[in-house]
Amino acid sequence: MTKKAVCLISGGLDSAVTAFIAKKQGFDIYALSFRYGQRHLKELSCAKKISQAVGAKEHAVLSLDIQKISRSSLFASSPQPIKTHVVREIGKTIPSTYVPARNTIFLSYALAYAETIDAKAIFIGINAVDYSAYPDCRPQFLEAYQHLANLATKQAVEGKTIHISAPLLHLSKADIIRTGVKLNVPFSKTWSCYQGQTKACGRCDSCQLRLKGFQEAHIKDPIPYSTNSYEE
Amino acid sequence: MTKKAVCLISGGLDSAVTAFIAKKQGFDIYALSFRYGQRHLKELSCAKKISQAVGAKEHAVLSLDIQKISRSSLFASSPQPIKTHVVREIGKTIPSTYVPARNTIFLSYALAYAETIDAKAIFIGINAVDYSAYPDCRPQFLEAYQHLANLATKQAVEGKTIHISAPLLHLSKADIIRTGVKLNVPFSKTWSCYQGQTKACGRCDSCQLRLKGFQEAHIKDPIPYSTNSYEE
Repeated sequence: MTKKAVCLISGGLDSAVTAFIAKKQGFDIYALSFRYGQRHLKELSCAKKISQAVGAKEHAVLSLDIQKISRSSLFASSPQPIKTHVVREIGKTIPSTYVPARNTIFLSYALAYAETIDAKAIFIGINAVDYSAYPDCRPQFLEAYQHLANLATKQAVEGKTIHISAPLLHLSKADIIRTGVKLNVPFSKTWSCYQGQTKACGRCDSCQLRLKGFQEAHIKDPIPYSTNSYEE
Repeated sequence: MTKKAVCLISGGLDSAVTAFIAKKQGFDIYALSFRYGQRHLKELSCAKKISQAVGAKEHAVLSLDIQKISRSSLFASSPQPIKTHVVREIGKTIPSTYVPARNTIFLSYALAYAETIDAKAIFIGINAVDYSAYPDCRPQFLEAYQHLANLATKQAVEGKTIHISAPLLHLSKADIIRTGVKLNVPFSKTWSCYQGQTKACGRCDSCQLRLKGFQEAHIKDPIPYSTNSYEE
C-alpha cells in the first residue's frame, strides 16, 4: 500500500534534504513548487532536478499572483536591493527578503493538493535555527498550522489527519548537510544564492549560511562560487 | 486615524453584505477577489461593482493557479456537471462544487495583504448555517485560522493582532438579506448563480438558497431569474 506525501521543493538545499527524508520514510513524493516573482528562476530549474532525483510521481509548478498585494526585496519587481548581513546578524531581525505570509500560502496550496490526492503528509523544509526571525518558521506557527489542517479538509470531516512534517525544524545547517550526505542528496542540483548567476555569489545571507554549514560539516559544497568564504 | 480591513469579495450576496458591515464598523476597505477557474467570470464583474459601491480604497483581483492540483465541479475545466439538490438536502454532505482548501487559500492571501498594508482586520462572508457541510465554513475552522494568524505575521511578532471577522457565520440567509437591506447593499449588483447567463437559473443550489432567503425575508430579489421558485 503506497502512501503519498506532498513535498514543497524550492530548489534550495533544505527542501531537497526534506524530500529525501520523505522518500526514506517510504512516501511516494508529489512535488510542489511556486513561481511567485523571485528575482531569478534558477531555483525552479533546480526544483525540477531535485524532483526528478527523488523520483517524484508528479511535480506541480504553480504561478502565484502575490506581487499585487505583497512587498519583498526578493521580488524581481522590487526596487529595494537585497541587504546582506554578516552571519552572526542573520536571524536576529526580519530581513527585507521576508515575503509576507509566504509559508502560510505555500502550506495552503500543499493542503489543497494533499486533500485532492488523499496524501497522508506534507513535508516542508522550514528551519527555526537560522530563520528564527521569520514568524512563519517558528515551531508554534507549525503547530498552529497542523491544528488548522486538522479541521480544514474533507479528510478532517472523515476523522483522518494530514500530517505536516518539518524534519529540519531544529537542525543546524551543518546537521542538515550531514543528513543530506547520508541520504545521497545531490547537492550539486540545489541552489541557495539570491542571485541567479552561473556561480553563487558567496556573499548574500543565503550563500553565507550555506557556506558556514558546509564548513562546519567538513564537507565540500559541489556548487561553484564567485567568493567562497563567509564573514563572522 | 483610519483603520484598514481586507475584505474578501466574491461577487455573491454574502460577501457583499460582509463588506458593508466592515464599512459600517468604520474600516477603510481593501477588497480582494480571485480568478481561480470558476465556470464564469460574471461574479468577478459583480465583485468589482460591489467594491466600487462600498467605496473600496483598492480592489486586487488575483489569479490562482489551483486547477493543476485541485478538483471541483465548480471549475470551468471540470468534466463533472454541477449536481443540483433540493433545499432541505443542501449542507448535509460535501457537494461537488466544494473546492479543496479554498477558504484556507483565500484567507492566506488575505493575511499576506493585511500584513503588507498593516490592516487590523480581515472580513470573510462564510456561513455555517447553509454551508454546514463545508469543512472550511465551520466555527472551529475560523478559530483555528485566527490562532494561526496570531502567529504567522510580522504583526504577530510585534504583539499586534489581525482580527478575522466573519459576521455572517451564524446567520440564516433571510437574516443576511435583512442585514443587507438595513445597510443599503445593492443586491442588484450581486450574483449567486453557478451559471453565468443573463438571468440566474433559479435551480442550482446557490439560486435555491438565495430565493428561499429572499422569500423568508419577505423582500423582492432585484436580479432576474429564469425560474424563481424553490423546491423544499
